[in-house]
Amino acid sequence: MSFSLPTYHPPDFTTAKLAAAPLTRFARVQRDGVAPPDYHATSIFPEYLHLAPGDWRLLTDSRMDCVVRRGEKGALEVVEFRRLRCGDRVALGRHEDGSDGIYVHTSGFRFAEQRPEKFAFRTLTTRESSFSFDYDELSTLLEHEREAGFVLWVLGPALAFDRDARAAFVRLVRNGYVQGLLAGNALPTHDLEAALYGTALGREIYRKRPVAGGHYKHLDALNTLRELGSIEAAVKRGLVGEGIVHALVEKEIPYVFAGSIRDDGPLPEVVADAYAAQDTMRALARRATTVICLATQLHTIATGNMAPSYKVLADGAVRPVFFYSVDMSEFAAQKLINRGSLTTRAILTNVQDFVVTLERGLKARDQGPGS
Amino acid sequence: MSFSLPTYHPPDFTTAKLAAAPLTRFARVQRDGVAPPDYHATSIFPEYLHLAPGDWRLLTDSRMDCVVRRGEKGALEVVEFRRLRCGDRVALGRHEDGSDGIYVHTSGFRFAEQRPEKFAFRTLTTRESSFSFDYDELSTLLEHEREAGFVLWVLGPALAFDRDARAAFVRLVRNGYVQGLLAGNALPTHDLEAALYGTALGREIYRKRPVAGGHYKHLDALNTLRELGSIEAAVKRGLVGEGIVHALVEKEIPYVFAGSIRDDGPLPEVVADAYAAQDTMRALARRATTVICLATQLHTIATGNMAPSYKVLADGAVRPVFFYSVDMSEFAAQKLINRGSLTTRAILTNVQDFVVTLERGLKARDQGPGS
Amino acid sequence: MSFSLPTYHPPDFTTAKLAAAPLTRFARVQRDGVAPPDYHATSIFPEYLHLAPGDWRLLTDSRMDCVVRRGEKGALEVVEFRRLRCGDRVALGRHEDGSDGIYVHTSGFRFAEQRPEKFAFRTLTTRESSFSFDYDELSTLLEHEREAGFVLWVLGPALAFDRDARAAFVRLVRNGYVQGLLAGNALPTHDLEAALYGTALGREIYRKRPVAGGHYKHLDALNTLRELGSIEAAVKRGLVGEGIVHALVEKEIPYVFAGSIRDDGPLPEVVADAYAAQDTMRALARRATTVICLATQLHTIATGNMAPSYKVLADGAVRPVFFYSVDMSEFAAQKLINRGSLTTRAILTNVQDFVVTLERGLKARDQGPGS
Amino acid sequence: MSFSLPTYHPPDFTTAKLAAAPLTRFARVQRDGVAPPDYHATSIFPEYLHLAPGDWRLLTDSRMDCVVRRGEKGALEVVEFRRLRCGDRVALGRHEDGSDGIYVHTSGFRFAEQRPEKFAFRTLTTRESSFSFDYDELSTLLEHEREAGFVLWVLGPALAFDRDARAAFVRLVRNGYVQGLLAGNALPTHDLEAALYGTALGREIYRKRPVAGGHYKHLDALNTLRELGSIEAAVKRGLVGEGIVHALVEKEIPYVFAGSIRDDGPLPEVVADAYAAQDTMRALARRATTVICLATQLHTIATGNMAPSYKVLADGAVRPVFFYSVDMSEFAAQKLINRGSLTTRAILTNVQDFVVTLERGLKARDQGPGS
Repeated sequence: MSFSLPTYHPPDFTTAKLAAAPLTRFARVQRDGVAPPDYHATSIFPEYLHLAPGDWRLLTDSRMDCVVRRGEKGALEVVEFRRLRCGDRVALGRHEDGSDGIYVHTSGFRFAEQRPEKFAFRTLTTRESSFSFDYDELSTLLEHEREAGFVLWVLGPALAFDRDARAAFVRLVRNGYVQGLLAGNALPTHDLEAALYGTALGREIYRKRPVAGGHYKHLDALNTLRELGSIEAAVKRGLVGEGIVHALVEKEIPYVFAGSIRDDGPLPEVVADAYAAQDTMRALARRATTVICLATQLHTIATGNMAPSYKVLADGAVRPVFFYSVDMSEFAAQKLINRGSLTTRAILTNVQDFVVTLERGLKARDQGPGS
Repeated sequence: MSFSLPTYHPPDFTTAKLAAAPLTRFARVQRDGVAPPDYHATSIFPEYLHLAPGDWRLLTDSRMDCVVRRGEKGALEVVEFRRLRCGDRVALGRHEDGSDGIYVHTSGFRFAEQRPEKFAFRTLTTRESSFSFDYDELSTLLEHEREAGFVLWVLGPALAFDRDARAAFVRLVRNGYVQGLLAGNALPTHDLEAALYGTALGREIYRKRPVAGGHYKHLDALNTLRELGSIEAAVKRGLVGEGIVHALVEKEIPYVFAGSIRDDGPLPEVVADAYAAQDTMRALARRATTVICLATQLHTIATGNMAPSYKVLADGAVRPVFFYSVDMSEFAAQKLINRGSLTTRAILTNVQDFVVTLERGLKARDQGPGS
Repeated sequence: MSFSLPTYHPPDFTTAKLAAAPLTRFARVQRDGVAPPDYHATSIFPEYLHLAPGDWRLLTDSRMDCVVRRGEKGALEVVEFRRLRCGDRVALGRHEDGSDGIYVHTSGFRFAEQRPEKFAFRTLTTRESSFSFDYDELSTLLEHEREAGFVLWVLGPALAFDRDARAAFVRLVRNGYVQGLLAGNALPTHDLEAALYGTALGREIYRKRPVAGGHYKHLDALNTLRELGSIEAAVKRGLVGEGIVHALVEKEIPYVFAGSIRDDGPLPEVVADAYAAQDTMRALARRATTVICLATQLHTIATGNMAPSYKVLADGAVRPVFFYSVDMSEFAAQKLINRGSLTTRAILTNVQDFVVTLERGLKARDQGPGS
Repeated sequence: MSFSLPTYHPPDFTTAKLAAAPLTRFARVQRDGVAPPDYHATSIFPEYLHLAPGDWRLLTDSRMDCVVRRGEKGALEVVEFRRLRCGDRVALGRHEDGSDGIYVHTSGFRFAEQRPEKFAFRTLTTRESSFSFDYDELSTLLEHEREAGFVLWVLGPALAFDRDARAAFVRLVRNGYVQGLLAGNALPTHDLEAALYGTALGREIYRKRPVAGGHYKHLDALNTLRELGSIEAAVKRGLVGEGIVHALVEKEIPYVFAGSIRDDGPLPEVVADAYAAQDTMRALARRATTVICLATQLHTIATGNMAPSYKVLADGAVRPVFFYSVDMSEFAAQKLINRGSLTTRAILTNVQDFVVTLERGLKARDQGPGS
């Protein structure tokens, strides 16, 4: 199975309707954090603003449910409402067909015939769907991304509780399939608990036997890390010698750990402010060409909000951003699917098995047909 | 069905073992936010510290996974690790049987025979469990709490999407069954969307027909509230005339809306910093005598961490804190049950139906046997 | 909220394509239970066979995945493959647009504008959908069906485990909202356990306290009923004085209890042969105008297979058959929704609450606006 | 990881209480299929009947919720109520401690210390549990069983929908890890659909593209098999050349396909009568030393009812019967766990991944440490 990105077909702005479209209107922000009436809100799709006759400008680094700010020199920036400042110029208009000078392009990518049924029947993905093809498709995609893309992983804590899944993820990091990672406080905490004490929530990580004082283990991990001041210090001093977080530090993979009200500790690196966390998460999300979310509803939806369905590359080319949501529950996995993008996939399974199986597939591909 | 609180039976400190127990040891904090080695971590159960021979002091306002700080005049405070400051004196010891001068009392409450099976068989609560008794038990409990307790509700956004559930919850507020409320940004946002536009996520809240520009509705609600500066302003100016948030303002019920990385907007009242949010949430949680969590894993677990299984009343009496988790999934509902407290209940159902059914039961009781 | 059935619009057989369509072909069965090559299989939609020029005959009593047998006098019968006999004439053709003399009419019903979004967005029904409207819609539907239709209920055992749900269902039976019932062995067994011993799976049905020898209760119920020889005998002799089964017998509501490999006992009435059970179930299903399935995947899918989306009334009028699936899991509830019929609804909740809430709504309507 | 079966420790019948226990009482059946009053019902545990002073007889081939029939020569047989005949002698007594001459031995097996936590904390198995150890434990168990046991697989249809899972299961059959198989009509139907047409429910089994006339594919498979008269005929004539069913026929592995009311067709081999199906299923179940159930609630519970927690081997030795339930939902997986046997395990994942991962682990073990 070889891989090729679907090609992007820009809108035809020479059609009568679009050629006759008005220019995009803008209005000034009157109060910090508040958009002017009739503001335009962005979607996950490529959007074009009509800035001068015949000059339709594609938004870069877009995301859902934001507004478009026009900079001094005409540069367009997609920003969260909370980041608006008095005097900013914000795009107006709620029609997406060009009649407000804004065109939302929902059908830019032509996918190979591999998934015509998605159009035809919109059949739901459930636990009874076949996923062999998805594993293979994702493998070929990741091989491509390793060279030419940016794979952002979004992890719930479950991955840290299982020996084989942890080991498989570490190999993914080492072999170049992880360019960035988003998580909360729990994933690194339990991964560090495993690295420091060999336990997960107070049980041996492999045999699951409870250890003495087990319910202290994750608190001890947090307390130790807080004392050392940083994960990097713990790695450099040799206290943390294996695991997911260790691999990230070793390979200098950027990560963001966003704080939440559930947290103990927290770890020193955790970003306490939800919106500061959004900003740092989005700094990674805007680089992403593929996003893979494992068993975390909070972080999956947060990242889904930040990740548009396309990316404008340095050379101006437009490519899709793929978004995978892996979860045990249709309810959770379908939340993102419901956004309607063809670049979104749900895989219904336990993330432990998902990571182990995916990594084995990648390894087999690496070793070639003789393996 | 009448109601009586289970009585609390303190430990017998005259037993040989406890009488001979050492005094609690304390050590100084050497670095802000870091507990000294061998720190003692708290549980959800009543805990006693042996401060002077025969003087066992019960922790008040306790919570799970914290440390005990001894104040100048011997006062004991249960604090999060992150709140420790250099020089603070922190209790040490990891044995819970008194041998470290700390006694954790897991069996203080004698429940009436109503739930002996919990001990006998530990049968799981599942969707096939019968819940008629739980509804009635909760009704009698809430009648009691309305006079003598503090009922804290923890709400996911689902409640705001349904007309009847919203109306039922508003009646609960008006009739005195709600003393405090915890939620994220989504619950008030969608409740305000309903109050302002009659929609839920862009559809008519009752008939579910999509309205024009539906996907702008929640953004418009957020933008409007941000412009007005506060929910209270929106209520006072008459823009928000009904709904959950309106009822809270009208009845002056305290609430905390904690920010998260999923948020759009956010609303002006939302607390951005996760740990500042924890502090304000805990200020309500420590007043709670009953906690009812509806369809929110994040806030349920966060509140569960903050809510111990007991409360020391003003007169020194000790009573249980009841904790209800209502969810559609055994996985979510059982997370809290797994803590092992007898004061915790799971109810497996849709929270819309739960609120409607509970409120009807309370109303029928109010109207008396003739109704 | 008043109610009116959507009107049925037959196909226009005068269009050029249909006017020129060939007659339906038929072939003889060569072996019992085996359809001839190129057989036509039925769907849930109205289907017309072209028997003579201009004579398009609508199938009555249709169901999914069956074949069409032509009787001696031209009568058409939709039959299961297993019921075919040597020499039977079976309709051929796999095109549904008339080109094989068969026309499948998927858009015959014009629904009021109440659910246009189903076409527009195909938004999934999940646990977070609002259901107030669905309860009201179903109430108005049931009021109509009580006079003019046939409401078939399909019950999993969960309903028998809860006091309030049982009582509410009994009132539904007594008040005329139940015309037929399908279930397995477990529903009547546990309902009879409750009637005989006041227990559910060996616990008090209301207070859930385990009783002595609890695990014998359902076996004793089965053994007692097997000794008496029939449920009717148990009711007539006064041993069974309340409950779901009692109400069915009292009101002479027809029921089918289909056996399965899970069964203990079984009860005397249970049909052991799966296909004989299908036949008796279908005899009820073909009378149904509304089907309501509660928390049973096996029986819901089985009944869904037997229930087409329309019914030809005695006077030749065509009306829709409504199909409700109530379950806690999107996976289960959506199985039927996936069939694509507009007459199918999923409600995500606990069936205990569903029955209690629905019955209260119907009662309130019965008592009129003053209640 | 090496493997050793836990040893069985019979009860000590020389204790005062058991030595003084009365003999088991028996009573005659008065009516076919009806047990006499005070009948004893069996459990999943080893049970001993006191037939003569000091002669405690262990039940062989036991199962839950049955009665004990005493044959002419004193032989004891555990039979379903429905199989009782007038005049049969049935054991009486509802106490399990010997006081009725019946002793139920719940703690006969001494497990290595690998799972002490099961006793200590009764922690629930959920989707967040670690399963690396369970995979390895099961691998070592299956290696042992291949030589010395009988592994019975119980399959839902999901396995037949996925290319890699089907292939992995075929390898399990070929490599000797499958001694018997239980399923319904759907599993073989969709496996044969795949073998005949390369589709699963009308889509290409690997790429999931819909094929023309896709909804006829499973009906065509059924019709073809019904014409041929048997699966074996289809294999022998070369029409079915691969897949699960093909591997079973090829390796002469016994299977039972039990009919249900959901069935289309059915296939010729399917047993229509639920209780005849129980009898043939139990004939396999009584040979089983390990049972592995994949994603089928109906068949899992049915088989669980038939499979006791122990087996008496030909030489009189007693060994445990292991029971694995693999499912995506805690609700389903925990149903069996709730029986309380230490020999029962739940694994929460997608069965596709489970089979692929298990088979890879077994293959790696086969190839030895150098692989």
